[in-house]
Amino acid sequence: MNPMLKNLTEKIMAGLANGADDVQHFDASPLPDKNEIALILEDALFLIFPGYYGDSKLSFESMELQAGYRVATLYERLQAQVLRESLHSCKFARHSCRHCQEYSALIARTFIEKLTCIRAVLEDDVRAAFRNDPAASSYDEIIFSYPGLEAIAVYRIAHHLSNQGLVLMPRIMTEWAHARTGIDIHPGATIGRSFFIDHGTGVVIGQTTVIGERVTLYQGVTLGALNFPRDAKGNVIRNAKRHPTIEDDVVIYAGATILGGNTIIGRGSVIGGNVWLTESVPPETRVLMAKPELRITSARHAPQTVFGDSPE
Amino acid sequence: MNPMLKNLTEKIMAGLANGADDVQHFDASPLPDKNEIALILEDALFLIFPGYYGDSKLSFESMELQAGYRVATLYERLQAQVLRESLHSCKFARHSCRHCQEYSALIARTFIEKLTCIRAVLEDDVRAAFRNDPAASSYDEIIFSYPGLEAIAVYRIAHHLSNQGLVLMPRIMTEWAHARTGIDIHPGATIGRSFFIDHGTGVVIGQTTVIGERVTLYQGVTLGALNFPRDAKGNVIRNAKRHPTIEDDVVIYAGATILGGNTIIGRGSVIGGNVWLTESVPPETRVLMAKPELRITSARHAPQTVFGDSPE
Amino acid sequence: MNPMLKNLTEKIMAGLANGADDVQHFDASPLPDKNEIALILEDALFLIFPGYYGDSKLSFESMELQAGYRVATLYERLQAQVLRESLHSCKFARHSCRHCQEYSALIARTFIEKLTCIRAVLEDDVRAAFRNDPAASSYDEIIFSYPGLEAIAVYRIAHHLSNQGLVLMPRIMTEWAHARTGIDIHPGATIGRSFFIDHGTGVVIGQTTVIGERVTLYQGVTLGALNFPRDAKGNVIRNAKRHPTIEDDVVIYAGATILGGNTIIGRGSVIGGNVWLTESVPPETRVLMAKPELRITSARHAPQTVFGDSPE
Repeated sequence: MNPMLKNLTEKIMAGLANGADDVQHFDASPLPDKNEIALILEDALFLIFPGYYGDSKLSFESMELQAGYRVATLYERLQAQVLRESLHSCKFARHSCRHCQEYSALIARTFIEKLTCIRAVLEDDVRAAFRNDPAASSYDEIIFSYPGLEAIAVYRIAHHLSNQGLVLMPRIMTEWAHARTGIDIHPGATIGRSFFIDHGTGVVIGQTTVIGERVTLYQGVTLGALNFPRDAKGNVIRNAKRHPTIEDDVVIYAGATILGGNTIIGRGSVIGGNVWLTESVPPETRVLMAKPELRITSARHAPQTVFGDSPE
Repeated sequence: MNPMLKNLTEKIMAGLANGADDVQHFDASPLPDKNEIALILEDALFLIFPGYYGDSKLSFESMELQAGYRVATLYERLQAQVLRESLHSCKFARHSCRHCQEYSALIARTFIEKLTCIRAVLEDDVRAAFRNDPAASSYDEIIFSYPGLEAIAVYRIAHHLSNQGLVLMPRIMTEWAHARTGIDIHPGATIGRSFFIDHGTGVVIGQTTVIGERVTLYQGVTLGALNFPRDAKGNVIRNAKRHPTIEDDVVIYAGATILGGNTIIGRGSVIGGNVWLTESVPPETRVLMAKPELRITSARHAPQTVFGDSPE
Repeated sequence: MNPMLKNLTEKIMAGLANGADDVQHFDASPLPDKNEIALILEDALFLIFPGYYGDSKLSFESMELQAGYRVATLYERLQAQVLRESLHSCKFARHSCRHCQEYSALIARTFIEKLTCIRAVLEDDVRAAFRNDPAASSYDEIIFSYPGLEAIAVYRIAHHLSNQGLVLMPRIMTEWAHARTGIDIHPGATIGRSFFIDHGTGVVIGQTTVIGERVTLYQGVTLGALNFPRDAKGNVIRNAKRHPTIEDDVVIYAGATILGGNTIIGRGSVIGGNVWLTESVPPETRVLMAKPELRITSARHAPQTVFGDSPE
């Protein structure tokens, strides 16, 4: 090795040796592998929506053959990655914990058994998208190209795993979808059937949000926290309910923000675009912004002024 | 096959056999392939902006050789994917429809003939970006790294194909750009020359939007629907004009929302950031939010309060 | 070659020959390669956060071996890409400029020497995320899956290179992160330690922004320009300070917009969600939107009205 590179390497290693212990990962069990988790999602989505992926016509008969192969790889991958997460947080036995082995096998089997249920729920999500979007030409277009459906499908998969006690894998899954769609759904959120997100970029749905059935969201909607309870030392208290509850048949238009763990949007309500709500509203309520006061002038004599403010 | 995996596979197949017919895709013509469509976009962008992609210096002479190769692969890929979409919606002959074959060959040839025109339009888009962004150091930087230009280039390609009657391919193209840039332009929108989008994340431009020449948008701008006409049965009526018209030389700043099919923003107008507009404005109008009323207090005694609301 | 394809190729070449000179790139030095720059970022992040990437347990000892290999490839890649950018803007010698060679070697060495410092700064960013996000279960989860941390890490790498005089490479780096996270930080911005961005989609931080220590931003925050100074001919003046200054210990909630090069948000201030600010505020100020005026009616009799506006 050339001396300059050797010297650079030594500097980096010295930095690591002197660095903080809590922001490195030596001698720890390996974390789940992001690429493998992406492949798990691809296998699962193939089994949920057969015929939409892959490059040739798929008959029910050829699906039977492919399904066997996909189930086997999915099981193997899932079991391996769950084992990683399990060993990583396992306190007493680092690399051959029998309990972790059994747990990961159980999670993998249960997940595959659950796929048919997840599929049934996603069918309703597809129908909800078609009912609510005039630009949708077919179910095929929705399954094939709608980022909202992709984000919801990944959330439903991740949420199942989150309910089994996993933390890192579900989060990597929803961040995979977040990166592709701009839709950030925490895997801990609870979301009912026939859910539709249109466009979706900028949507944030927090960890303790509860959403009922037949709810529609547009781009830029935040279902967030109003404040974070902190303990006497000023540390945030984790896992408290701090995000809103949205009841059945609610529509929330683009850019609306609804905050707080005690905020309940009653059944059948319509929340207009850009509305900012930190209090509950009863069922069947329509909440709109008052017509905003606008300053309308001629643009002709103010060419230098931009971004919505006058320099005077 | 291990009995547990066999059993899991059988459960999944039983679920599919009992599942809804309209959310599966057995025995149907294969849909266009997303990976192939990404390669089509890469070939097209290489031919539009030669020298910006690839790993070696490109002379006009070597371009002649490469262009031939790229044109051939582009033609072949495009024809194959258009054929897939065409067969997929072909009612009377599923796999050897002569009309679908001829149609896809025609579309592929026309598209490549059109590339020079698309390139000329994109040249103006590059110039518009440079004129309007003080952070731009050169045309090269814009072509090479601006997500707004990428989204516009893909839209212009997809819009051409949309005008030829295709639906799925153009949508997959614009969703490919949406995933990369956060900019969601429906391929059906009509957009004039010298168009510039800065930053871009969260921009939504709906299907029936009409945009004139020399228009500039910033991040988070929505050009959307105000309401969806529904027929007597409550079903949404598809393809009606429901998104706004933006005339020439309009600037729309970050986070502004303009809604409705009858809403016309007159030539030369400036729409300020966060403005919410559901009505037309005449040419040369400047629309700003009235100075918002703010509650300004000391932060010192309210450390627990966050997200813009007071607990009192 | 088939005559039709030959003819199409000739048309494209004729279009290029007749096209504008300033939007093509023939006979110019090749630009930096985006794939190589992505690999540079991966190498750098591996060296910064060892053990979080890769597929097996990493001991300090095995890291010593891997570090040497990574340092060598990182050095080689970085030197090659810096050389490309340097030759590309080199006025007097196009392909064998000795100064460009030496400059690129120096930049590559300095960058690797700097990694330990960048790592130390990022450690504080990880701690800030944990302190401020109740949904974070561990440092591991933050390093491994938080898009905000990824965007900040890439910004800190790109900013170092921007300070060395590079333009295209840093921009490609931050656009790589923008595409993955929806967070758009200009590499020229100046950002202090312990910086945290939660969720992040839609965040825009402009080129001349200055941010102090322990600052927290939420999704959709814009730190932008209020207007662009133009010279007598109407051309924008580039590189003037036009984005705000955010002092230490400021929190800015989701969707807030702060604009202007003279706007200073004083130390310890809290800016509420959706606030629109174009003026400075003193230290320890809490700025909230006044309770917005809402129109609350029954949703029962208005099923056709959507998106926040009534048709009456």
